[in-house]
Amino acid sequence: MDAFDVFSRQCPSRTTLEHVTGRWGSLTLGALYESRLRFNELRRRVDGVSEKMLSQTLHALERDGLVLREARPVNPPWVDYELTPLGREVAERLLGLIQLVEGRMPEVISARERYDTTRGAL
Amino acid sequence: MDAFDVFSRQCPSRTTLEHVTGRWGSLTLGALYESRLRFNELRRRVDGVSEKMLSQTLHALERDGLVLREARPVNPPWVDYELTPLGREVAERLLGLIQLVEGRMPEVISARERYDTTRGAL
Repeated sequence: MDAFDVFSRQCPSRTTLEHVTGRWGSLTLGALYESRLRFNELRRRVDGVSEKMLSQTLHALERDGLVLREARPVNPPWVDYELTPLGREVAERLLGLIQLVEGRMPEVISARERYDTTRGAL
Repeated sequence: MDAFDVFSRQCPSRTTLEHVTGRWGSLTLGALYESRLRFNELRRRVDGVSEKMLSQTLHALERDGLVLREARPVNPPWVDYELTPLGREVAERLLGLIQLVEGRMPEVISARERYDTTRGAL
């Protein structure tokens, strides 16, 4: 079997990378790394996500084997989400990236100011 | 100053995370980590990107201070792109994530098959 290669348009790894790094996928994995959460808890944590987008995001991550959906047989129904072991590994790398970006935002903001001054605002 | 927090909808770090992890941003940073490239070389490496999307991606990464555009004063014009030191740090973390995803695709594909069998195809 050939190696997987995200640079290749047809490779299924590209889809998974997109689920993981997509706008809502990355924040969902990051939030679930901290604790298992119910749908509405997750929705509050991932500020700005719609119910529909969160639901689609969770389905894609569950299908890729990164998130586990657990429905507890109680009344009223209780459904929560947690990371699988593979999901935790992915989330760790993602959080490393998130922390780097957050920590270096002063540099990014200075760069934007320089760019806008010299090249005109985008 | 408050800390930057990608989970907050208004935080400028969320935009930068999106530039870095977006469909084309991540592949562009990954490609430039290997070597400095001219526009058309980059376009061939990032299989499937359109000229317009690559151009927008490069502008956003340049504005964030992650990519440096260098126009050499020769005839015919020669423009190429390379990562800044901050861009290299970001790309390193991103490549760690990409390599993890590529390496674990057999698990992901098995998970998808299980999911589709038990839950019906998405």
